[in-house]
Amino acid sequence: MDEITIIEIIKKTLKYSNNYITKGIDDDCAVIKINDNLYLVFTTDMMIKKTHIPSIFKPYEIGGRILTANVSDIASMGAKPLAFLLSISLSEKEANENFIKELYTGLNDFSKLYDCPIVGGDTNKGDELILSGSAIGITDNPIYRKGNVGDWICVTNDLGRVYCALTLYYMFKDKKISNSEFKKLCEKYPKIIEKLRKPIARVKEGILMNKYISGCCDISDGLGKEIKYFKNFELYEDKIYKLIPEDVIEFCEEFNLNPIKVVLNSGEEFELLFTTSKYNKVKDIVKDYSKIYKIGKIIEKGQFIDGEQFYGGGYIHKW
Amino acid sequence: MDEITIIEIIKKTLKYSNNYITKGIDDDCAVIKINDNLYLVFTTDMMIKKTHIPSIFKPYEIGGRILTANVSDIASMGAKPLAFLLSISLSEKEANENFIKELYTGLNDFSKLYDCPIVGGDTNKGDELILSGSAIGITDNPIYRKGNVGDWICVTNDLGRVYCALTLYYMFKDKKISNSEFKKLCEKYPKIIEKLRKPIARVKEGILMNKYISGCCDISDGLGKEIKYFKNFELYEDKIYKLIPEDVIEFCEEFNLNPIKVVLNSGEEFELLFTTSKYNKVKDIVKDYSKIYKIGKIIEKGQFIDGEQFYGGGYIHKW
Repeated sequence: MDEITIIEIIKKTLKYSNNYITKGIDDDCAVIKINDNLYLVFTTDMMIKKTHIPSIFKPYEIGGRILTANVSDIASMGAKPLAFLLSISLSEKEANENFIKELYTGLNDFSKLYDCPIVGGDTNKGDELILSGSAIGITDNPIYRKGNVGDWICVTNDLGRVYCALTLYYMFKDKKISNSEFKKLCEKYPKIIEKLRKPIARVKEGILMNKYISGCCDISDGLGKEIKYFKNFELYEDKIYKLIPEDVIEFCEEFNLNPIKVVLNSGEEFELLFTTSKYNKVKDIVKDYSKIYKIGKIIEKGQFIDGEQFYGGGYIHKW
Repeated sequence: MDEITIIEIIKKTLKYSNNYITKGIDDDCAVIKINDNLYLVFTTDMMIKKTHIPSIFKPYEIGGRILTANVSDIASMGAKPLAFLLSISLSEKEANENFIKELYTGLNDFSKLYDCPIVGGDTNKGDELILSGSAIGITDNPIYRKGNVGDWICVTNDLGRVYCALTLYYMFKDKKISNSEFKKLCEKYPKIIEKLRKPIARVKEGILMNKYISGCCDISDGLGKEIKYFKNFELYEDKIYKLIPEDVIEFCEEFNLNPIKVVLNSGEEFELLFTTSKYNKVKDIVKDYSKIYKIGKIIEKGQFIDGEQFYGGGYIHKW
């Protein structure tokens, strides 16, 4: 049983809808239409300690991360985040003042950064740390995962660092490198570790580019999985190389990794993947916040990378 | 460490807010003001298998219940539910087609009942079944947990059955009664078991009574805890007795329980507890859906039951 099969069963079973619902399952957020100029976007994201939270994470970083993961979905709709709620299951280990204070300080700091207040939640006793966030946002023009034929496919900033950071983390966790080697490598690749520990949702970018893009999603499961939402596309390796940071290239050389595969499989980057016919306009309008890079084009039919059939990538839960 | 201390730490740590937020933590829902005639209400509720889900629950009932718990918070604000999201952690035990189909059929049926479509979620692999829901609603007049001096304090329908049902369930679970005795008692007290298995959120009632009530909350942790949100009140035992159903009285006699204590400690009833100076109007306007009962009055100062200091009740998580 995998995530995709489960979601198919869920979609078939959930039949009820009404006129408010413009978009249900099948995008980063659900979209609810209040009137022609007012749409709500609504999303949820869960983090389970064992599955999603590397043990090196500080409570502050866990707090920032759950907010970022949710707000990033709002950003990918080109919407402004309005508010965030956190349901939390705490085990005895975390039910102490220090942990709670640090976790919620992370939440508070990032809520300021995103102008997205944390307005409540539900606190529960459980066997392990689980955080389940939900966020709402507002826009007059929700942006979906799609593109028009001929549009450029673009990405904000860079990709690859999170995959490298997790590679390092698992080498350490699986005892392939010692604690001191791990620390040395973290010092050698500080930006790689930072992107894992403190990813940033591209909230300002999403709002600013709203009127100039045809489609958008955030990169939470890896470009290789997310790009498929755009259905028909061609990617260009030479263009993808331009958004790979030097430290990722260096890391790939040191650990014998293919940089393109690293980029395609790097999840929880929270960069925006979007389509536009106005590349220069978008580049200019977000220039104070993010760089943007072309990586491909929307085409009539098929999924290709440099003319070859596209092989994919990204993360899928399996049971 | 208990839930109340944790929530105090959280409230102190979460400082960031903005002009959209009319109400943060401290009510059934957060309230976000879009304009003078449009408020969003936003809530989340988590169910952890070990803590919240009796093993006798069918997947269908679990689905209905998580939606009801969330939608009930929307109803208690006098708002109309708009949409619901479900994040779910599935262990290997539940990651099969039958379980998922039944769970989401329960969700779908109740979403129709409440006119609250399920618009998405997040599906994860975990060690145990955890459901975390969130719901948004809409109103021009959000109702808070408060009342004016002299207002009647009222409750919809009845209270006590859920406490009795859980008493039965724990006698069975702790092997104080056999499987066949448990079944016989379930047959003897069908409405008691039904209220545990299929509680109903009072959505229509909340919307209909909106303009005629001064305050409202739903009874999820027990009347004894919820009534304290109204700060200054006097309850009358003879009035409370009038909303206790006959089967609860009979159950209390059979198992030597105090019916008033049962009512005060009966959680997850999802009835509405509200204050009004227009009792007859409210009674009339909701008569096709629910009965309502007076149980007390808002007073100048203090918390009393029949002139004595009020002793409380209800459920608090402890670690």
